[in-house]
Amino acid sequence: MSPVHDLKINPARLMESLAALGQVGALAGGGVNRLALSDADRLGRDWTVARMQVLGMAVTVDAIGNVFAVYAGTEDLPPVMTGSHIDTVRTGGLYDGNYGVLAGLEVVTALQEAGVRLRRPIAVAFFTNEEGARFQPDMMGSLVYVGGLPLAEALATRAADGCSLEEELQRIGYQGPAAVGCPVVDSFVELHIEQGPVLHQQGLQIGVVEGVQGISWTEFTIEGVSNHAGTTPMALRHDAGAVAVRIAAFVHELALRYGGTQLATVGSMQLSPDLINVIAHRALFTVDLRNTDEAMLARAETEVHAFAAQCAAAQGVACSHRRLARFEPVVFDPMVTALIAQETQALGLPALRLPSGAGHDAQMLARVCPSGMIFVPSVNGLSHNVKEFTEPDDLAQGAQVLLQVLVRLAQRGD
Amino acid sequence: MSPVHDLKINPARLMESLAALGQVGALAGGGVNRLALSDADRLGRDWTVARMQVLGMAVTVDAIGNVFAVYAGTEDLPPVMTGSHIDTVRTGGLYDGNYGVLAGLEVVTALQEAGVRLRRPIAVAFFTNEEGARFQPDMMGSLVYVGGLPLAEALATRAADGCSLEEELQRIGYQGPAAVGCPVVDSFVELHIEQGPVLHQQGLQIGVVEGVQGISWTEFTIEGVSNHAGTTPMALRHDAGAVAVRIAAFVHELALRYGGTQLATVGSMQLSPDLINVIAHRALFTVDLRNTDEAMLARAETEVHAFAAQCAAAQGVACSHRRLARFEPVVFDPMVTALIAQETQALGLPALRLPSGAGHDAQMLARVCPSGMIFVPSVNGLSHNVKEFTEPDDLAQGAQVLLQVLVRLAQRGD
Repeated sequence: MSPVHDLKINPARLMESLAALGQVGALAGGGVNRLALSDADRLGRDWTVARMQVLGMAVTVDAIGNVFAVYAGTEDLPPVMTGSHIDTVRTGGLYDGNYGVLAGLEVVTALQEAGVRLRRPIAVAFFTNEEGARFQPDMMGSLVYVGGLPLAEALATRAADGCSLEEELQRIGYQGPAAVGCPVVDSFVELHIEQGPVLHQQGLQIGVVEGVQGISWTEFTIEGVSNHAGTTPMALRHDAGAVAVRIAAFVHELALRYGGTQLATVGSMQLSPDLINVIAHRALFTVDLRNTDEAMLARAETEVHAFAAQCAAAQGVACSHRRLARFEPVVFDPMVTALIAQETQALGLPALRLPSGAGHDAQMLARVCPSGMIFVPSVNGLSHNVKEFTEPDDLAQGAQVLLQVLVRLAQRGD
Repeated sequence: MSPVHDLKINPARLMESLAALGQVGALAGGGVNRLALSDADRLGRDWTVARMQVLGMAVTVDAIGNVFAVYAGTEDLPPVMTGSHIDTVRTGGLYDGNYGVLAGLEVVTALQEAGVRLRRPIAVAFFTNEEGARFQPDMMGSLVYVGGLPLAEALATRAADGCSLEEELQRIGYQGPAAVGCPVVDSFVELHIEQGPVLHQQGLQIGVVEGVQGISWTEFTIEGVSNHAGTTPMALRHDAGAVAVRIAAFVHELALRYGGTQLATVGSMQLSPDLINVIAHRALFTVDLRNTDEAMLARAETEVHAFAAQCAAAQGVACSHRRLARFEPVVFDPMVTALIAQETQALGLPALRLPSGAGHDAQMLARVCPSGMIFVPSVNGLSHNVKEFTEPDDLAQGAQVLLQVLVRLAQRGD
């Protein structure tokens, strides 16, 4: 039996398991399609559950299809949990979600090979429909698990293809008997690819995720008057397009002015009638604001709305808006974050603290237990893309940090 | 025989002829569709030629289908010409073009009723395909007439529906025997609705058109990199959309900064992939710049291109552009413009001098003879729209000014 501080994950075995799960729902030319509760998702779940069972873990499935596998500890305490999701977007990569689940199983494999039992059990979970690509909202399984969405409401969700989530869960055999919220866990750590360019850009292998930024999505509609671009003097125009581009430019400038973690994106814009020589009577555009600081995010929203109203009034156009999404920022547990930073440094690696730009199951778990996340680089920041890639050595280092953090959490005193 | 200075057009007769031609190609619910060289255009041409013949005018058709009707003078001199076009856009109004042709015929009717022959002949013309809605370029008939476009090239033009212009001309029986450029004329005056809001806004009946503004149409393409809106720091973005909206906002601000007759419109913009949470990798937008002053127009173009290049470089995106159209401004003949202003004032009406925002056949004729234009108001500036409307009294006043100006031109000494 190896001493706990000598435990090592097996990089080759981790890569093999990622490649094997990547075969399920594989797309010609690379990438995978395992939309939540599809036949491919069922096959991916079956393959993962089989691996859990081979490891002798006790597997339970709850009423929303979340799967939990527990590797017993030496004491009867709530488990330390890790995991993520194995559903993908329609043209997904091999790492998003899958990496966190399979690295968790690799940690358990390493513990088992070494004959090690820790004080607390280790649980490895995969949550239903994290991506939200087929059923909305995203992060649904973990949201239901923490009590943030009533089970009945989640089960009644319908996909664009007309299927109900409950019928699909039953069809693929994953509506389990376990009550929502079980097992109760001690703490949660999620290992994930960054899905952004920061670590890759800086040549770093490990990111210590301090929290998940808040998100504000708004759709603006500007209504003016269409007119001939050649015969309407500037002073007599009610140009919806001119107002839309000014507001959009303001949104970008605001993010640069705020600095810090403020992000701002106008990714969608449509002008009507969208002709070169006709003043637009209508402009529709979206504003995506993100910040790790709720007060700053709220201030950004207020500024954008005030500028939009003022700009519309000056041009004599109507401006209305519709909130599409709003999530407050999540701050991960300082104890968990500190442990991740320490174990990264123990491996001789610099530990960059950064926020997560994307949403993750860990932000839901943070509502019920001390939680944290470990990031590894995404080459060029690509994700939700069949070209998503992370270097094998980065994947191995991330899994090793996960192992060490899980050991620290499982072994700690009360 | 009435004295020349007592000649009056007949408003009711003018309105009847506008209504009658408006029946040809009438759309359910209002407006007309007489696309160039369509069956409806043939019917409109036949109806108009019949009216010319009833007036005893000598009708000729040239090789591009322009139609000229001449009311003889007392001397064998080149005629003073008026006219416009009778083709329309797909959902056109009753006045655009038609008004200028029918008012010209009303003037001749008034002369004939009064038994008046002027020193020079009066010609009333309608030019082929002014709108450019079916065959490009627009103002084609008058452009060919003045030698700006070779006849063979114009005849070889194909519509989006696959038809060749020459075949369509032959099919509707309007490829005439007259050589292009005949008849040679003394001068040209076109009466037209403003198609913009200035006269209506100011409550004026007559506009003295000083020239046609220059037009510059450019399509810009910005190529950046798509990335996750939540995980890509502002400093690492290559946001094509952010650059596009900044340039578009600059274009509008430039027009306000220049003042004068400078116009600027960004009427069309598309972002790709056009999703709320994805940074656009591509933005396509159009810039429509107009000015009556060529130096200012060229300066505006230079400024926009310089700003676009600088803005793209700062964001690390590629910026390319394609010129879609470029016409230098046209200045109408001061003698003709002065005559229009004098005859407007003689009717007790204020004469507002203004440029034309839209293109007109008169700007082509200006290349070969002293030319000018008279505008009457468009209610709310609407045109190229089935709701295009001008008050009957404004139509009557415009036709009366046209009569008086044609008399002055036809009677003047050498």
